[in-house]
Amino acid sequence: MEAFFEVKRPDEVFELIQGFQPVGEETIPMESGLGRVLSRDLTALEDLPPFLRSTMDGYAVKAKATFGAAESLPALFEIIQEVKMGTASPGILSEGQAAKIPTGGMLPQGADSVVMKEYCDRLDEHTLEVSRAVSPLENVIQPGDDLKKGNVFLNLGHRLRPQDLGAMAGLGILNVPVFQRPRVALISTGDEIVPPEHPPGPGQVRDINRYTLAALCRRLGAVPVHLGICADRFQDLQENVETALKKADTLWISGGSSVGTRDLTLKVFETLPDFTLLVHGISISPGKPTIIGLAGSQPVIGLPGHVASALVIAEVFMTRLISRLGGEEKRKGALGRTVEAQLSRNIESASGREDYVRVRLTRERGKLIADPIFGKSGLISTLVEADGLLRIHMNTEGCYQGEKVRVIPFDSCGGGLE
Amino acid sequence: MEAFFEVKRPDEVFELIQGFQPVGEETIPMESGLGRVLSRDLTALEDLPPFLRSTMDGYAVKAKATFGAAESLPALFEIIQEVKMGTASPGILSEGQAAKIPTGGMLPQGADSVVMKEYCDRLDEHTLEVSRAVSPLENVIQPGDDLKKGNVFLNLGHRLRPQDLGAMAGLGILNVPVFQRPRVALISTGDEIVPPEHPPGPGQVRDINRYTLAALCRRLGAVPVHLGICADRFQDLQENVETALKKADTLWISGGSSVGTRDLTLKVFETLPDFTLLVHGISISPGKPTIIGLAGSQPVIGLPGHVASALVIAEVFMTRLISRLGGEEKRKGALGRTVEAQLSRNIESASGREDYVRVRLTRERGKLIADPIFGKSGLISTLVEADGLLRIHMNTEGCYQGEKVRVIPFDSCGGGLE
Repeated sequence: MEAFFEVKRPDEVFELIQGFQPVGEETIPMESGLGRVLSRDLTALEDLPPFLRSTMDGYAVKAKATFGAAESLPALFEIIQEVKMGTASPGILSEGQAAKIPTGGMLPQGADSVVMKEYCDRLDEHTLEVSRAVSPLENVIQPGDDLKKGNVFLNLGHRLRPQDLGAMAGLGILNVPVFQRPRVALISTGDEIVPPEHPPGPGQVRDINRYTLAALCRRLGAVPVHLGICADRFQDLQENVETALKKADTLWISGGSSVGTRDLTLKVFETLPDFTLLVHGISISPGKPTIIGLAGSQPVIGLPGHVASALVIAEVFMTRLISRLGGEEKRKGALGRTVEAQLSRNIESASGREDYVRVRLTRERGKLIADPIFGKSGLISTLVEADGLLRIHMNTEGCYQGEKVRVIPFDSCGGGLE
Repeated sequence: MEAFFEVKRPDEVFELIQGFQPVGEETIPMESGLGRVLSRDLTALEDLPPFLRSTMDGYAVKAKATFGAAESLPALFEIIQEVKMGTASPGILSEGQAAKIPTGGMLPQGADSVVMKEYCDRLDEHTLEVSRAVSPLENVIQPGDDLKKGNVFLNLGHRLRPQDLGAMAGLGILNVPVFQRPRVALISTGDEIVPPEHPPGPGQVRDINRYTLAALCRRLGAVPVHLGICADRFQDLQENVETALKKADTLWISGGSSVGTRDLTLKVFETLPDFTLLVHGISISPGKPTIIGLAGSQPVIGLPGHVASALVIAEVFMTRLISRLGGEEKRKGALGRTVEAQLSRNIESASGREDYVRVRLTRERGKLIADPIFGKSGLISTLVEADGLLRIHMNTEGCYQGEKVRVIPFDSCGGGLE
């Protein structure tokens, strides 16, 4: 436990996080599935559509009977019926017969295609002229053309989007197996911290990190579990940590930015049964003094105390932690979360660490410009003014004005939140 | 009302939507503010931090007394106290005196700077050697350095992110004025449509659009109001529409893809008091047969019936409608919602309309590749397989293989949803 720990590189931290185990699963109503992650593959248990369906307004026919039809030489059909939406037509259509059909209608037995109404001329109640040939299955969808019975249409680890719920509705899948939302216990430490409803006395400040981190958890589909503010005393923190681990899947401690407080967090972690220290410092700025360990299988995190440092660590690493605990596979689209922008000025950076610079994004002549915001990492205002984080890679000494850079945008997540 | 309507260009439709009025405002607890849109500017009513605060572990001093100090010529100080977190120190510090202070501690009266502990050598309990000079206000944050009393720190129309809630917590702002969530009434029409819990009979299909559109509304922070499935009969639809307009801020009808059903929607809209038809067809594919009107000040929308068409119109136009009704100003970052990708093959497109092509996104050697999915617009599976929509501009005849294109990603919104 007391072994000497080198500061870990960000890519090593990502790899460690990838080894953590997802939380358990649960079944929820399909309608509540938006943003949840599938814990099993979903298989179509029936064909969609369930019948041969028209995609046009027109006349259902046997295609064969239209072969050779042209404006100069129309084919003649006997109109035997009109298909009503939502019903099966009686009888069987023979080669020289046609049935009027609306978009979405079910083809009568015997018909295999639909002639668009633009190519049809109704001579009288019972007689149709068709001026263009259709191929078999033209202007129709066959049973299972959309979703085929027996096929997997969504995979384990997929985060559900509106159209995915639509597909489930179409197949009559009313309940869906998903991973539980990861529960994140949050403890703010610091003798100077008071809750926001308390006017701070001399030397006191209100708790900022708890609200920032809780909202970030919610944005990612996790459930924040508030353990409140804890004084910088071993016994108090230890009791809080034990309670937290019973209530949640992972525990994040934030607040103390003095060396003494940071040491306290690690000391308390080291008293936990089955504790393994994985990370004691990350080569990143801001955010270096980050602690990551496992208490049994539960990740326990000591976040840096400064607000900007805590949020950078949360955006860069805790988002991955929640994604991993929540069972999410890398999105099929591998979209990543970055936008490209042009840097407005030179930025220096120390080689050997990864820098995350808060930037403002503006659009000039269609191009995104990233404008660095410099400010102490204890200032929440730098985050409020910023639109994202610019990442400067480990082995560079900075970025130049005009250089194309990638920015992780700060997001409220579009707002679909309770 | 019966005037001849030209098909509108997408940019004309955006402009019309921009003219709609936002919904009303309400006050909610700060903690529930994530993703909500501010209905007023937020002003700091006090300074953050409220006192002169150390950003380092070290010793608080009067900077003047360190001037000229160097390793070869350290300055000597009398240590008069140790600052405790969360308290004001008694007494006033004089020029030759120092007080031990942790990161975040409040400077004693008289002190104006902090010497990092790395440059301090404690000779005995009362004597300190300082080997480096500091400037006044070095290693401290002044009152209001973060957020200044009287300053607007967040603007009307801003959608709240985690750090914005953090800043409010820091200032003790416990309640926040926001726009209400827009309420969107959804009606599915079609004699063939049954709810997902009903096994469809011959010619029937389950309702897909309602679930897709409701989830899209939730993703955008709107509240879907379900009016259920309505038969294709004038009287029924008219009653449903009247009920919908009492319950919601906007009404979207979807379902009917046959010409008859589309005509029915418009006919019913035209019976509404104060109805103005604004859009009857958009030069876009898929999704051309879209109707947009105003019933008084309430936007009423007839969406195309095919699922893919309906979702394209929803992603392209209804997102803007909800954003507008919800009071959101263009994000300061002007991030837009697109990613850049390289096209995997040629796509043809008719000039004179904007095409939205469903694409799969994959990453190859760090680059995003957009691979078009071709399929009928009635198929939900094409949307389930797709990762986004590629936009082909109006005045081009397509895109070439290898061309850089912009893709609107389909999103679940990160998952922070109830």
